[in-house]
Amino acid sequence: MSVARVTEISATSTVGFEDAVRIGVDRASKTLRGVRSAWVKEQQVRIEAGEITEYQVNMMVTFVLDD
Amino acid sequence: MSVARVTEISATSTVGFEDAVRIGVDRASKTLRGVRSAWVKEQQVRIEAGEITEYQVNMMVTFVLDD
Amino acid sequence: MSVARVTEISATSTVGFEDAVRIGVDRASKTLRGVRSAWVKEQQVRIEAGEITEYQVNMMVTFVLDD
Amino acid sequence: MSVARVTEISATSTVGFEDAVRIGVDRASKTLRGVRSAWVKEQQVRIEAGEITEYQVNMMVTFVLDD
Amino acid sequence: MSVARVTEISATSTVGFEDAVRIGVDRASKTLRGVRSAWVKEQQVRIEAGEITEYQVNMMVTFVLDD
Amino acid sequence: MSVARVTEISATSTVGFEDAVRIGVDRASKTLRGVRSAWVKEQQVRIEAGEITEYQVNMMVTFVLDD
Amino acid sequence: MSVARVTEISATSTVGFEDAVRIGVDRASKTLRGVRSAWVKEQQVRIEAGEITEYQVNMMVTFVLDD
Amino acid sequence: MSVARVTEISATSTVGFEDAVRIGVDRASKTLRGVRSAWVKEQQVRIEAGEITEYQVNMMVTFVLDD
Amino acid sequence: MSVARVTEISATSTVGFEDAVRIGVDRASKTLRGVRSAWVKEQQVRIEAGEITEYQVNMMVTFVLDD
Amino acid sequence: MSVARVTEISATSTVGFEDAVRIGVDRASKTLRGVRSAWVKEQQVRIEAGEITEYQVNMMVTFVLDD
Amino acid sequence: MSVARVTEISATSTVGFEDAVRIGVDRASKTLRGVRSAWVKEQQVRIEAGEITEYQVNMMVTFVLDD
Amino acid sequence: MSVARVTEISATSTVGFEDAVRIGVDRASKTLRGVRSAWVKEQQVRIEAGEITEYQVNMMVTFVLDD
Repeated sequence: MSVARVTEISATSTVGFEDAVRIGVDRASKTLRGVRSAWVKEQQVRIEAGEITEYQVNMMVTFVLDD
Repeated sequence: MSVARVTEISATSTVGFEDAVRIGVDRASKTLRGVRSAWVKEQQVRIEAGEITEYQVNMMVTFVLDD
Repeated sequence: MSVARVTEISATSTVGFEDAVRIGVDRASKTLRGVRSAWVKEQQVRIEAGEITEYQVNMMVTFVLDD
Repeated sequence: MSVARVTEISATSTVGFEDAVRIGVDRASKTLRGVRSAWVKEQQVRIEAGEITEYQVNMMVTFVLDD
Repeated sequence: MSVARVTEISATSTVGFEDAVRIGVDRASKTLRGVRSAWVKEQQVRIEAGEITEYQVNMMVTFVLDD
Repeated sequence: MSVARVTEISATSTVGFEDAVRIGVDRASKTLRGVRSAWVKEQQVRIEAGEITEYQVNMMVTFVLDD
Repeated sequence: MSVARVTEISATSTVGFEDAVRIGVDRASKTLRGVRSAWVKEQQVRIEAGEITEYQVNMMVTFVLDD
Repeated sequence: MSVARVTEISATSTVGFEDAVRIGVDRASKTLRGVRSAWVKEQQVRIEAGEITEYQVNMMVTFVLDD
Repeated sequence: MSVARVTEISATSTVGFEDAVRIGVDRASKTLRGVRSAWVKEQQVRIEAGEITEYQVNMMVTFVLDD
Repeated sequence: MSVARVTEISATSTVGFEDAVRIGVDRASKTLRGVRSAWVKEQQVRIEAGEITEYQVNMMVTFVLDD
Repeated sequence: MSVARVTEISATSTVGFEDAVRIGVDRASKTLRGVRSAWVKEQQVRIEAGEITEYQVNMMVTFVLDD
Repeated sequence: MSVARVTEISATSTVGFEDAVRIGVDRASKTLRGVRSAWVKEQQVRIEAGEITEYQVNMMVTFVLDD
């Protein structure tokens, strides 16, 4: 018997989608304890002058609550 | 490189849907810093005796996290 | 313990989306008793010669059934 | 027997969602002939310093093709 | 005029889905004030050696915010 | 060759989700002939003071039409 | 300014999907006035001994309401 | 390595859904080069006086772009 | 008390969508026993030189399992 | 590093939804090794003479593959 | 106040998904001015003899329209 | 005229999402003949102590059936 919360995090990277996932997981782990998984909900890129400048990922992060 | 959170807010108004959006944005901005956008997820009205008594909006509010 | 029905209503207005919601709620309340809420499912406009001539709303109307 | 195309248009207004719909319909009608309807797909607001600065609507615009 | 937040909670029980809902509601009510409703988003079971060991429910919990 | 209608029914129970389904089916069968099936569309609970006070089910009820 | 209702009809045919649509439209038009359109929501076939015995269509039928 | 575009086409026929698909494909092929596939997104019929007067298909048409 | 499996089958025909359904049902029935129904999930056409060369249907086939 | 398959199972019970889940899990575990979880996709009831005669659950069953 | 269009682009690469996104963005930027973002809608791979031969991405490309 | 089956595969990698796709395709190709494509349905990561330990992909694998 356990309870977790799921919260949506959006993170961006100049490198790629997986890097954006890692940046979001890093940031979430700083504030939240018990982070267990992140489900990728959306992926998009920002573009300027024909070049990709940013990779953005929205993800649903699950973290277990203490009793 | 930035990280944001997305949280669902439900707000009601007796005036209309856009007013409900404003009320929700106002309330969110009181507690959360860095509010950037709100995506309307659902719109509904409450009805009594054939009259609309309340306009309700559910929205996904994005706010940027500090480092 | 209560039972309600949910029925889809489509209404149009020349004024705007909220007016279309009101027109649909008015019409539903004439025929149905116990109308409690309406959830906006779709919004669209009809256009002629570059002008919006009609605002249409489809909504799911909930009304409580008598015993 | 007729054929139409459907294209997604995103428009913003500082006034409200319906104004954004009108701005998008206006712009689409300048370039496209035979615009018949627009279905609202998404609604969101941009926010700065706790104030709504922009109402954005994404809509699917249908226009009839000539033979 | 009121504002509420909606947050996703995941809860597990060895007894059944409704017990998982109760456990999640209990836990949410310890931390959050004004919990009003919970909408069941997903239901799943964990299985070991052909036996169900855990019933899990993900739900969207709505709680009213104080002014 | 047969024709059926499908209508959405919302029912609540203080006991549980399956009881809510039964209450909805009972009520539908009083008014409608030829009820054949009900597909569960949504499940939610109402909460007061940390306790579940009501289990609500929305379901799509199919009933066969006479010729 | 007009109001319409949308109701789900399920119809079966031994001939094919379009015939099922026609059967459903015929039946709906017997009971309902002002039937304007039907949107196909689902299509399925029943099978016995490797043969298709029935084509079933579920459709959302729109009919205009009188004032 | 190839790039294609996907555009939504809506076509109507008095004969049936597959004829509507053919009409839409014909029209698209007149204007667009490299049409490869069409995915049926929606099917609906228009009805007058209890009779189907038009079969409409909305489809996502994919066409390969030249370099 | 019975158990069934549901599996996705994709079938193509040069004739039309219903023929593709029949071809898929035929093939499924050769390998699987107890095939009861098939729900159409997707319909698309392949196009070459402006002509439809293939009708494809993806469907969810349900077949009852023996004890 | 592991690979699993996910297959849809439909099971019915005269007792209730959770019993249907158990019946489906039992049956799946007889044929498949490594069953780990089942995600409830759909719930419906069959009705005769105003009484529920069968509870049906469709679920996505995940089982780990051996190397 | 600005208006943008959103169009679906499908691109393939032999290297990976992000490379496919870049190829699609490159190609879109050759023809379209004002490309601002691309939202990944679908990702799939083509396979021959057990090897991935192509990574395909479908994305919704947004580009701002000139006045 | 051809028939294919579509089955859901879940695969994990410690390296990244594309590696997980490759692992899943490899494993599927060992057991199934005629594997043609895999459509990415879901992407998620497992996290321990703030670090991503596993990349998981769920994909719909299509393989052509022999006659």
